[in-house]
Amino acid sequence: MNSTKSFTLQTQAGSEKIGEALSAGRNGFLRLPHGDVETPVFMPVGTQAAVKCLLPGQLKEIGTQILLSNTFHLYLRPGHEDIRFHGGLHRFMGWDRPILTDSGGFQVFSLSKLNKITDEGVVFRSPLDGSEHFFTPELTVEIQEALGSDIAMVFDECAPHDAPETYIRQAMKRTYEWAKRFYKAHSKEDQMVFGIVQGGVSIPLRQESAEQITSIPFDGYAIGGLSVGEPESVTLAALEATCAYLPKDKPRYLMGVGTPELIFASVALGVDMFDCVLPTRSARHATLYTSGGKVHIKSAKYKRNREPLDPRCDCYTCRHFSRGYLQHLYARSEVSGMVLGSLHNIRFLTAMMENIRISIRERRFEAYRKAFFDRYRNQDGSE
Amino acid sequence: MNSTKSFTLQTQAGSEKIGEALSAGRNGFLRLPHGDVETPVFMPVGTQAAVKCLLPGQLKEIGTQILLSNTFHLYLRPGHEDIRFHGGLHRFMGWDRPILTDSGGFQVFSLSKLNKITDEGVVFRSPLDGSEHFFTPELTVEIQEALGSDIAMVFDECAPHDAPETYIRQAMKRTYEWAKRFYKAHSKEDQMVFGIVQGGVSIPLRQESAEQITSIPFDGYAIGGLSVGEPESVTLAALEATCAYLPKDKPRYLMGVGTPELIFASVALGVDMFDCVLPTRSARHATLYTSGGKVHIKSAKYKRNREPLDPRCDCYTCRHFSRGYLQHLYARSEVSGMVLGSLHNIRFLTAMMENIRISIRERRFEAYRKAFFDRYRNQDGSE
Repeated sequence: MNSTKSFTLQTQAGSEKIGEALSAGRNGFLRLPHGDVETPVFMPVGTQAAVKCLLPGQLKEIGTQILLSNTFHLYLRPGHEDIRFHGGLHRFMGWDRPILTDSGGFQVFSLSKLNKITDEGVVFRSPLDGSEHFFTPELTVEIQEALGSDIAMVFDECAPHDAPETYIRQAMKRTYEWAKRFYKAHSKEDQMVFGIVQGGVSIPLRQESAEQITSIPFDGYAIGGLSVGEPESVTLAALEATCAYLPKDKPRYLMGVGTPELIFASVALGVDMFDCVLPTRSARHATLYTSGGKVHIKSAKYKRNREPLDPRCDCYTCRHFSRGYLQHLYARSEVSGMVLGSLHNIRFLTAMMENIRISIRERRFEAYRKAFFDRYRNQDGSE
Repeated sequence: MNSTKSFTLQTQAGSEKIGEALSAGRNGFLRLPHGDVETPVFMPVGTQAAVKCLLPGQLKEIGTQILLSNTFHLYLRPGHEDIRFHGGLHRFMGWDRPILTDSGGFQVFSLSKLNKITDEGVVFRSPLDGSEHFFTPELTVEIQEALGSDIAMVFDECAPHDAPETYIRQAMKRTYEWAKRFYKAHSKEDQMVFGIVQGGVSIPLRQESAEQITSIPFDGYAIGGLSVGEPESVTLAALEATCAYLPKDKPRYLMGVGTPELIFASVALGVDMFDCVLPTRSARHATLYTSGGKVHIKSAKYKRNREPLDPRCDCYTCRHFSRGYLQHLYARSEVSGMVLGSLHNIRFLTAMMENIRISIRERRFEAYRKAFFDRYRNQDGSE
């Protein structure tokens, strides 16, 4: 089964200068049971076994290689045994390309009422019905094996980024112990397992966590607990410090990051994978990405705009409709507006990743980054 | 321009017995500026220049020949002058097949606060902002010409079905006068205009209205004001009486009807066109049509159901997903559930109409109707 999971770097880092430093940007292939994923890659999020507003056929059409789904939500509803009954998550949701499942660590700590954190695991109450549940590393292995995802994430403790160092250190220690137990309990051969580096925004703690987690031979390493409210410069410093301690031959995944600014900066630091709910959530709230910057499409100023949302985009939305029509759909709260917006936002990031990969292969990543941001401003793209 | 609008009957009525009577079912071709429509046909409703939850590409894929949109809603928002600016309704909404626009008569009387009905027209207040508007036959011509629909409907007065006969008679008289003014004001050559027969559930009044309206040489005739709360037998009696007075060589459109029961019965009486918001509205509320009958897909009993929604259906939903997954999507309020449900419901009715047309051509309409209802029960299709 090992041939169904591997990571190969096609273009290595260090060949191109970015400012004073050498770019660590890399282009690789992640071979997974449900197909190959070319990195760097952005993974749309399908929390409830569905990417909000989009169908699998639409996601394929816009070049989505891999989706993220969520252990925490699927465990609570419909339940992983239901999904096992349905033949696993791929079959259940009609998606035959790779899936990465988050372990639920982040959600247990951010969405539910915690009753007790012990070395053994976490007792929490369901935010849905108040029922009590107990997550251990072993249980999150069991759930993710039942889901049958291509990549399972370890169960970790996510300390708030502004927590005192003693707390962060304690959470790190527990995350390390849990990672060892998770790795030991895991038995599904055709499923990759990624460890997660924590450590808040402290560079020494990040390095310590990276050394601990990379001492376990995971198939890849994620960077958790960043971009959760701290300034971007702090994020990038912690990220750079972490990446320096990660093995070069394993995939690196920066969890929860999805803005063009952070993606470009992280790719330059050698990150391979990203996920974020922002593109679909923004689309549901009428904020759409374009090559000229973000557009709040509900604004009345677009009523008589006959231009496509983004003339540089090849998606269904941009090929068929005007900004005026999108404004109308959003202003009328038509579901089709959210569908067309979500489709476009995911295509926008997916196309950006395609261009990033090509630019790395052609040793012109920095030139592409500059060209991208010469056009893209983090403001209304119509001005 | 006349070659872009015509109606040709392919299979004439009277060739097959239904019970004691001869079937009046007919199969025809409606040639319109944006393409041919084979009848009998069901028209999905796109009230706000969008069929709720569905994209034009999806509607084409499931065989939608013609859409209905609405003068009343589009006049209020975004405004017909905006749509004219965008190159007409087809261009605006990205739909290049035929569109029929309702005149707004029904909506003015059912959705807005009426201030005054005179022989000249109707003063009403917008249900959105309370602003005052004045609809005349001439204005509804102007709006529909600006929208550029393939078929425009006359502006009529819709009396409640339980109104006293004197009121119905007065409304009928006004509808006749308005129809003459509408016909006179209309000048767009590549747009069909349909008259609307009213008359409540009274057979003599229906006949009188039909005689009046058919005295104007409209391109087709609609039957309005039926199936608005009265028993089905009453609907059908009034419909039969009306059809007897309609010219055989013009298309006949029963407004607002969309249940399989009424569609089959109406086709047998010689009706060619139907529209209804029910299939999409039901889908948004988790009621899905199947060959076995209606299914309330949100029910927990489907959680572990691995079967497709309808094994006889060829739509994207039925080809890719189980009832269990649809249950999950609806129970989680995922938009994708409503999308998949709407897609299926429209496909279900569209396929039913395809089979009806074939069965008429092959002189086995009655056999098809029997086979359809032997399977289809107006109850939970899973029992």
